[in-house]
Amino acid sequence: MERLPGFRDFYPEPVPHPDLWSADARQYIFDQWRAVARRYGFREYDGPPLEPLELFTTKSGAEIVGQLYNFIDKGERAVSLRPEMTPTLARMAAAHERHYKKPIKWFALPQLFRYERQQKGRLREHFQFNADIIGEKDPAADAELIALLIDTLRAFGLTADDFVIRLSSRNAWQEFFESGKRESGKAENGNGAYEFFQIIDKLERTPPDESQQKLAALGFSLADVNTFIQAGQPTAELDFILKNLAARGLGDFVKIDYLVIRGLAYYTGPVFEAFDKKGEFRALAGGGRYDNLIKLISAGKVDLPALGFGMGDVVLLELLKARGLLPKFDANVDVFCLIEDETLRPDSLKLISDWRALGLAVEYPLTPAKSDKQFKRAQELKAAHTAKLEKSPAGELLVKVKNLATREEKTAAPSDAARQLMNSQRTSRT
Amino acid sequence: MERLPGFRDFYPEPVPHPDLWSADARQYIFDQWRAVARRYGFREYDGPPLEPLELFTTKSGAEIVGQLYNFIDKGERAVSLRPEMTPTLARMAAAHERHYKKPIKWFALPQLFRYERQQKGRLREHFQFNADIIGEKDPAADAELIALLIDTLRAFGLTADDFVIRLSSRNAWQEFFESGKRESGKAENGNGAYEFFQIIDKLERTPPDESQQKLAALGFSLADVNTFIQAGQPTAELDFILKNLAARGLGDFVKIDYLVIRGLAYYTGPVFEAFDKKGEFRALAGGGRYDNLIKLISAGKVDLPALGFGMGDVVLLELLKARGLLPKFDANVDVFCLIEDETLRPDSLKLISDWRALGLAVEYPLTPAKSDKQFKRAQELKAAHTAKLEKSPAGELLVKVKNLATREEKTAAPSDAARQLMNSQRTSRT
Repeated sequence: MERLPGFRDFYPEPVPHPDLWSADARQYIFDQWRAVARRYGFREYDGPPLEPLELFTTKSGAEIVGQLYNFIDKGERAVSLRPEMTPTLARMAAAHERHYKKPIKWFALPQLFRYERQQKGRLREHFQFNADIIGEKDPAADAELIALLIDTLRAFGLTADDFVIRLSSRNAWQEFFESGKRESGKAENGNGAYEFFQIIDKLERTPPDESQQKLAALGFSLADVNTFIQAGQPTAELDFILKNLAARGLGDFVKIDYLVIRGLAYYTGPVFEAFDKKGEFRALAGGGRYDNLIKLISAGKVDLPALGFGMGDVVLLELLKARGLLPKFDANVDVFCLIEDETLRPDSLKLISDWRALGLAVEYPLTPAKSDKQFKRAQELKAAHTAKLEKSPAGELLVKVKNLATREEKTAAPSDAARQLMNSQRTSRT
Repeated sequence: MERLPGFRDFYPEPVPHPDLWSADARQYIFDQWRAVARRYGFREYDGPPLEPLELFTTKSGAEIVGQLYNFIDKGERAVSLRPEMTPTLARMAAAHERHYKKPIKWFALPQLFRYERQQKGRLREHFQFNADIIGEKDPAADAELIALLIDTLRAFGLTADDFVIRLSSRNAWQEFFESGKRESGKAENGNGAYEFFQIIDKLERTPPDESQQKLAALGFSLADVNTFIQAGQPTAELDFILKNLAARGLGDFVKIDYLVIRGLAYYTGPVFEAFDKKGEFRALAGGGRYDNLIKLISAGKVDLPALGFGMGDVVLLELLKARGLLPKFDANVDVFCLIEDETLRPDSLKLISDWRALGLAVEYPLTPAKSDKQFKRAQELKAAHTAKLEKSPAGELLVKVKNLATREEKTAAPSDAARQLMNSQRTSRT
């Protein structure tokens, strides 16, 4: 029986096949995400992977249903696996925002699901680091969020040579759109804005003729659009964000780029995307300000400004692999306990139990095995040490500990051996 | 808009309402599960939360469908959210077992889903710690797995006064069933075994008359069954496991109890459940040996003995709360950076950025705020320290660091302040 197409199995390292996914690499990514979010004072939340379908259509319209894992449950409810986290966040924040001091800084690591027509190798689920700030209008919040994005990518060893944040402004585009409408004398101010944003969003991937034609239909020229993009004149808001990031020493990681606009309808302010500098991969992350969404999701009950970004695990992992930045993962065994004399197995089990209680990762042969086979197993597991119980002529229990890296060997009483192993563990991990 | 009934939202602490769930408590439980599994040399894996429906009906029969979140996806596939992890594990292990040295020791922390008729407050999802050993027939593996279960519960501060592992034997019951059949002269040897196990499984919760009647229908008497249970005579296998656990110093945590049999059809050897000693809660965990399941799931391609257990997050959390064993969770802010002089905001941002890069969790006011309000916020967040940049008369930048627990204050150059904060963090966390 096979898993469903577009879904992933995560195996312990070493993974059996390059096409399979590593549970250790996933955990490594999750650990970095959590660690950096914590440093920035973001708190973790989570919601259900299954939500009422309406939660997603309220935000994105009925068109989204074609891309969802939606169904009718046994209680006749229209439900869907979550395709994104923001509606859940908005629902949760709207329900209990009064309990939390503003700004609320929250993050989550949800698995998200989209049923897209299967393209070869295209995934139908991924994990996403979502970080959001709720309840702060000031662009200082945008800067804080972008700094978190930059430092998250840096935590994996990526540098300003590897990636850049392309910073843009949905409101600058909104103004461009509206003033163009005014100049062309068209009455229907605001109408066509979504279509216009979609054209800009796809500009890089669309032949100029086609873009020109579509823009003309809305009363714009490609030349004017290109002039606006090339001028790259930061708004006062973007200028503030750039200065804030520069003060932090993060100026090199960000540039104004009005080619970025974010396709979705609900952005209301600064928007941004993170890209690898060689342009080999899809966007690493994207986000922006969405000041009206919580009001929409809460049916007007709660009105709070908000902003956030999402960073997926798949493109990130591809980039880290390509740049050689993934660490080597192994079993992290601190001690492999050799049991060569079966009469000492009960005492060995006690030793193993005590060491594990101290926090050491200890492996041993479950059943009697030849000593060379045991030692080979210790090496395969890349254990840091082997340990072996011995009885002195006086009948006293002693432990012979061998450091497999240095080949150094020491014999000590069990309690002294424990202390040495704990110290050695602390040194090697810090 | 509300979340679906039976699903949970996880909020950062302090949670807004006692009926809501804590994301911090969840992460605490996950951290302990991972840490103890690692000490025992178990490696993490995961599969998709959505699987082909057939994977679950192959193992549990068509009856299970009534309890599943199953549906037809847009590619006309019969699919289901996973109600348990073992079929996915068996699928994954069968596909790539040759790549891994035996015994395979794997664990996972999946979210599992069951559509049960809604009872008030009854959940339709939970998280479960699953640990399994594959490829080892010897009861030494059963002992290792039960030791992991015991030490996992101990990692939360639970002791032999709080919980006990009730150890039983599906094969002892199988023998009892078969010898009873032989004595009664009934031909259909083996038939009715599943029904018999179900009666035993429910013995504690069923009126004696009813059990007696059902047993009689299969040719057994309640008196014989009770005599067998009360004798509690360990099989050679269980005796081996008890001795192994006693050698580890874990003898107090386990007792033979033939009332435990585990309802599911596929167990083939020792079975066990963990219970709180006061008997206030449902089982904390349960598991056993299932030597034929991988062969079944792989349609005969792979034949490996296996055993495992599952421990849910919900009952565990209830028990930890009842015993006062949940730690207090807070924002874990190391430093709250006060910005009282706005001309020093750019320098403060640099300081904050540098400290975060060192691994410190740093918060600060995003926008200008009165100094008493800033200090109050630092206290609310239970920050370990406040820090404030100042300029000396000579124009030199200095940091005044205050330990909010000891009220001790020190003024130092930024780099010295960083070193002090790092040392203080290390001390407080170890």
